[in-house]
Amino acid sequence: MKSYALLEKMFSRLHSLDHASAILGWDEAVMMPSKSGEARAQVLAELKVLRHETLMSAEALDLIENASTDLSHLSAWQRANLREMKLVISNARAVQKDLVEALSLANSRCEQAWRSLRHENNWNEFLPIFEKVVQLSREEASQRSQFSGLPQYDCLLDQYNPGLTSSEITKIFDQVKAFLPGLIQKVIEHQKSIPAKVPSGHFPVENQKALGLEVMKILGFDFSHGRLDVSHHPFCGGVPQDIRITTRYNTCNFIESLNGVIHETGHACYEQGLPREWINQPVGMARGMHIHESQSLFFEIYIGRSREFLSFIHPLISKHLASNPLDPFWSFDNLYHLFNQVKQTLIRVKADEVTYPAHIILRYEIERDLISGKIEARDIPELWNLKMKEYLGISTEGNYQDGCMQDMHWPAGAFGYFPSYSLGAMTAAQLFTAVQKTLPTLKADLKAGNLHPVLQWLKGHIWTQASFSATNELLTHATGETLNPSYFHKYIEAKYLDSAEKG
Amino acid sequence: MKSYALLEKMFSRLHSLDHASAILGWDEAVMMPSKSGEARAQVLAELKVLRHETLMSAEALDLIENASTDLSHLSAWQRANLREMKLVISNARAVQKDLVEALSLANSRCEQAWRSLRHENNWNEFLPIFEKVVQLSREEASQRSQFSGLPQYDCLLDQYNPGLTSSEITKIFDQVKAFLPGLIQKVIEHQKSIPAKVPSGHFPVENQKALGLEVMKILGFDFSHGRLDVSHHPFCGGVPQDIRITTRYNTCNFIESLNGVIHETGHACYEQGLPREWINQPVGMARGMHIHESQSLFFEIYIGRSREFLSFIHPLISKHLASNPLDPFWSFDNLYHLFNQVKQTLIRVKADEVTYPAHIILRYEIERDLISGKIEARDIPELWNLKMKEYLGISTEGNYQDGCMQDMHWPAGAFGYFPSYSLGAMTAAQLFTAVQKTLPTLKADLKAGNLHPVLQWLKGHIWTQASFSATNELLTHATGETLNPSYFHKYIEAKYLDSAEKG
Repeated sequence: MKSYALLEKMFSRLHSLDHASAILGWDEAVMMPSKSGEARAQVLAELKVLRHETLMSAEALDLIENASTDLSHLSAWQRANLREMKLVISNARAVQKDLVEALSLANSRCEQAWRSLRHENNWNEFLPIFEKVVQLSREEASQRSQFSGLPQYDCLLDQYNPGLTSSEITKIFDQVKAFLPGLIQKVIEHQKSIPAKVPSGHFPVENQKALGLEVMKILGFDFSHGRLDVSHHPFCGGVPQDIRITTRYNTCNFIESLNGVIHETGHACYEQGLPREWINQPVGMARGMHIHESQSLFFEIYIGRSREFLSFIHPLISKHLASNPLDPFWSFDNLYHLFNQVKQTLIRVKADEVTYPAHIILRYEIERDLISGKIEARDIPELWNLKMKEYLGISTEGNYQDGCMQDMHWPAGAFGYFPSYSLGAMTAAQLFTAVQKTLPTLKADLKAGNLHPVLQWLKGHIWTQASFSATNELLTHATGETLNPSYFHKYIEAKYLDSAEKG
Repeated sequence: MKSYALLEKMFSRLHSLDHASAILGWDEAVMMPSKSGEARAQVLAELKVLRHETLMSAEALDLIENASTDLSHLSAWQRANLREMKLVISNARAVQKDLVEALSLANSRCEQAWRSLRHENNWNEFLPIFEKVVQLSREEASQRSQFSGLPQYDCLLDQYNPGLTSSEITKIFDQVKAFLPGLIQKVIEHQKSIPAKVPSGHFPVENQKALGLEVMKILGFDFSHGRLDVSHHPFCGGVPQDIRITTRYNTCNFIESLNGVIHETGHACYEQGLPREWINQPVGMARGMHIHESQSLFFEIYIGRSREFLSFIHPLISKHLASNPLDPFWSFDNLYHLFNQVKQTLIRVKADEVTYPAHIILRYEIERDLISGKIEARDIPELWNLKMKEYLGISTEGNYQDGCMQDMHWPAGAFGYFPSYSLGAMTAAQLFTAVQKTLPTLKADLKAGNLHPVLQWLKGHIWTQASFSATNELLTHATGETLNPSYFHKYIEAKYLDSAEKG
């Protein structure tokens, strides 16, 4: 018991370092003066080194060993916590120190080069810099694989979603590939008959902000433990006790920011709903990026873009933004359609919920084969173009900036992250189906702006569960089965193709 | 040399922890949501413990010992750095761990109690809580005295101003007491004949902010390494590479905020002017609070309230704030007088530059005798009243909230800090006299808004010197002598009593 208690103390200290890093990271993106970046980078690196030294210490290893010899005095949550502690320590020990440093250097160099070379559509100059990142990421995967015995690419998946395997993903994505291209065609065909008046006019930042804050409040965001601010790339940062979400405002289009605010509020409510008594321990953290995205997308799509909730906030939107509410642009049918328009697009972050998985499956298939050595970095543009044509019917030949150079993830060495987005979207569909079963009044509640029942469901089934169970267990407990993409399929068909639902 | 290099690395890490704490502290005062305070306090405490553990380590002591055996390979700055490192480590080792914890607890309890009891004018309930702080502060002074051999109260002075002694302060303050009460009477008598139209009207926050930012720019504040924000108590926080000053706005009185912004800009420019190559080492830090206050007061009073600089910013003030610039309120003579009005007041933070030292001398004499045991906490109200009557001619009998309970310093256990304010003010007068000697065009420069020469002088003589020399050496090098209050005396007489200067 004593060893376990000392481990809790050690991880509580790491949590404090992470808290400091999280707020400093938020400050860097939102508040920091233009030339203070170098000093800030040094501080963040130093906090990271301190963290790493603690995890690599002989003391940590001894305590884990001693604590594991007798589990009989530990509660179920304490055992789960010990399991998560072991995982954190193993992840730190699996990679050699000089590789960690080389990766950090190569990733930040490549990310910086990418910022300008993407604008120049300059693949040739980007390729050799990127090849270094690929080589070192393969080396990381290889070292992790030797340590854990898992397949190499799975070791990278594991960093964002503990326990997730590529065979699991391939199985799910193959099911999706079987219906998605046809489904996209049908939805686009179906929407052709719906008239759409595109946004026009000027939407002042202050008004958009007031609307966003009001909607966050309806969605249960706790402003005594969090804030909304502005940054170049929207994100959800901070710590559960002090969560910081950001957005950016486009004065010509308020839908982007409102969608974004609702999405980040989903991330934020998950963090704010984590169990307070475990907040500074590994078991008290969110279950991984797949589940995190499921919560943000549940908020953004299944609540935010639903006919019911949109009809509830329609008067608020008009109140804050409409200079002439009688303009047909402000009609509910037009707004609903604008929030739910489906289009084939080159850019992932601009994609709608129907085409989005195609962007992810493409990236997954390429990065999986890249890490395993089946393809090389130089093969990416051609494969990208082929898959874009196959899944979305559009070509990216010669267009690197809107093709394989569009995302920051790979230049930054974040291989294994992309699947989280679509697994999250499909999980959200499955959770929504489960909520509907236990809450028959759900649609009426959303229409009345009464979020309490659905938020309580998510809180009980997901948020307060933190990392107590593995992802598949968590999902089975909440919905009766592991991830099954047929819920997503059915939901899209009902929303976009059922004539009774036609908007 | 190797030990010295390892010490630099150790202190560079401590600097990173301090950087994190400084930004987290700023965030707490300016940005943090209302209920995130408990989590933040834990993180700040953890960073403090990490710092303390490093300073108390056997490794630190060994390195200091080894580095001190052969100084021949060290540069003059490295030697000064080693001297400052020793001081930091000695200060950490001088006080026993359980006393540090007891002090921290008692101080924060007393500070919290003070917040409400001051409003209630409730000395009786405050006294026993405050007595605990006094008792523990005496114990701290005693432990430090045993460690260093210095007199007890001097050990507390030393925490804010290394090397400062009470015999030095007493000598200076006795000189000031000899002329101050009479001088105050004369100035007030003299100002009776000057008509003053008091501020009226509404000064919107946005306009005050725009004016403040413009003045900060003129004063050389580097916005690529700093910001201006709003907080309840104005302060200068952050780190030299990222300095954060704050103010608060009163829409009925713009002078308070403008004075405050200029004051904090003085602190900020000192920090921004510290030598970049030593920024993460003890020798690269500001020389202590007395010198720090001398820079903020140089900016606030000797630049900001001078006839010349005020005449330069007069059009800016009108541009941002005057709805009717022809109103006699906006005449230069009236503004100059409002910025330089002398009054006997109960409250230190509202005092002008002439009466201010009286408030400080009173506090100094009481806290010195309190720590040495010559008086007890219960004696303070009576002594306060007697000294207020003697130095400023006003009574505080029965008025604790505007008397001995007005400041946060003592409830927070910050004995030994108060002298910094007046030593700073008098140092500013001495520096201003020295600048005038080497820059004969100073007044014309201020009138033209050309701050470059005077800022370069301060940068060369004070800012880039950091903690290379002791305070007295620094001052002697810059002005030819140690602190001499006669410069302050002469300056006040010239400004307020010379009829040619009459405003």
